[in-house]
Amino acid sequence: MIINNHPIKVYYRDIDQMGIVYYSRYLEYFEEGRTELLNQIGLDVLSIEKNGILLPVTTSHCDYKVGLKLEQEIIIESSIKKYPKATLHIDYKVLNSTNKEIMAVGYTNHAFLNNLGNPMRVPKFILNALKINGLL
Amino acid sequence: MIINNHPIKVYYRDIDQMGIVYYSRYLEYFEEGRTELLNQIGLDVLSIEKNGILLPVTTSHCDYKVGLKLEQEIIIESSIKKYPKATLHIDYKVLNSTNKEIMAVGYTNHAFLNNLGNPMRVPKFILNALKINGLL
Amino acid sequence: MIINNHPIKVYYRDIDQMGIVYYSRYLEYFEEGRTELLNQIGLDVLSIEKNGILLPVTTSHCDYKVGLKLEQEIIIESSIKKYPKATLHIDYKVLNSTNKEIMAVGYTNHAFLNNLGNPMRVPKFILNALKINGLL
Amino acid sequence: MIINNHPIKVYYRDIDQMGIVYYSRYLEYFEEGRTELLNQIGLDVLSIEKNGILLPVTTSHCDYKVGLKLEQEIIIESSIKKYPKATLHIDYKVLNSTNKEIMAVGYTNHAFLNNLGNPMRVPKFILNALKINGLL
Repeated sequence: MIINNHPIKVYYRDIDQMGIVYYSRYLEYFEEGRTELLNQIGLDVLSIEKNGILLPVTTSHCDYKVGLKLEQEIIIESSIKKYPKATLHIDYKVLNSTNKEIMAVGYTNHAFLNNLGNPMRVPKFILNALKINGLL
Repeated sequence: MIINNHPIKVYYRDIDQMGIVYYSRYLEYFEEGRTELLNQIGLDVLSIEKNGILLPVTTSHCDYKVGLKLEQEIIIESSIKKYPKATLHIDYKVLNSTNKEIMAVGYTNHAFLNNLGNPMRVPKFILNALKINGLL
Repeated sequence: MIINNHPIKVYYRDIDQMGIVYYSRYLEYFEEGRTELLNQIGLDVLSIEKNGILLPVTTSHCDYKVGLKLEQEIIIESSIKKYPKATLHIDYKVLNSTNKEIMAVGYTNHAFLNNLGNPMRVPKFILNALKINGLL
Repeated sequence: MIINNHPIKVYYRDIDQMGIVYYSRYLEYFEEGRTELLNQIGLDVLSIEKNGILLPVTTSHCDYKVGLKLEQEIIIESSIKKYPKATLHIDYKVLNSTNKEIMAVGYTNHAFLNNLGNPMRVPKFILNALKINGLL
């Protein structure tokens, strides 16, 4: 398993009338975590796109457990647990920074598209990056 | 089944570097559709909250099929297919307004909380609203 | 003066903990109004960009008068009052749909950039569109 | 002058079709900077609101100089230069973290409202916080 922990702080812009983070913002948090996870293994978005490859999201899923409050500090734990076949699967946990309580969990799936927008096999350099970083 | 069709137009603010709608924006579109669906059966958010009831999202899910482009006109088809037990389940289709192609599908689940933030039985007035509007 | 009135409804996603629309959302509303204003005179974003021209915002300004509430219906009144020199100036009023009360006012300025990203003279087809549509 | 420097990284969610940060996102960045500035002098939003005081934005202004790109690291320099009279004025600079180039500048004004939503004199504890922190 390849894993990244990324800290985020909740600001006013994220909070809704119920006093908790609005539900679509979690997908933005997931994107932050995912970006840092991929950067950690040398797969930053810029260099992926420079290779003519796009990784559009095909599925997003989030289970909301405990509402996030203003100025709360959280950790986005992003992880890759298995080699991609047709799609890359990334898991997320939203943790309370202080006590590590699980506030939400979710996942995203990503397709591999070439620069014509057509589905392609998983690029070698992505498989390599996963292997080098210890994915079994 | 109770169903609502809500038109939305894609603006620049929604579009990302790939030239398609950013993935979290779909959850905002779902919320628009859901609000109009609930309004249609007399369950507007304001009157639900006036009854001391909150309907926080417990799960969101979206499968992205075809990217939405700038100034594209879409329809959010929101529907309730069964009576809520612990949670209310709402389904969504994102349709191309012109040819009714399915661009994305998804769903949200919602808990019923009283004004202390505790789970509660499904309120009678909500069951009634669903019944009056023909849910089998 | 060229003017456009564009209706918008406030949804939950726009509302903050104070129960009013979060301040950055007004700039998204302005963009909706601006897009419709430009479309009305044949200057849709897609055809402007097809001409190799970008209109990036150089200044945004908003004076907030009365907070916008959930499910409130508003009108964005966008207007062009004078021919652009270095920049195009667009004014906005946010009006209560019901009683036409002014809820906010603002403006944006836009530069003209060619496809190399360099400043350019105001394109003829834009001046023409403004003239045909009665700008004095 | 009271000043705070707050680092931010640009993520995909902030980027528009032109490949630069969408213009309303700057107001979210300003809010992050402002929150950290006020926290630094003991005026966190939560404790201000616990005092029954709201600080709604009455004006926002931003001059955009150089577009912000994906994964760019920036600093939001927020500052208070003078004691508030009717409103609190906060200035912002968006700086390139690497070379300190100014990418954008702006300001916000904030009213002081009591818990009935009426304008009030500047609260003593806010004036004190500014004084203690060296504002001339």
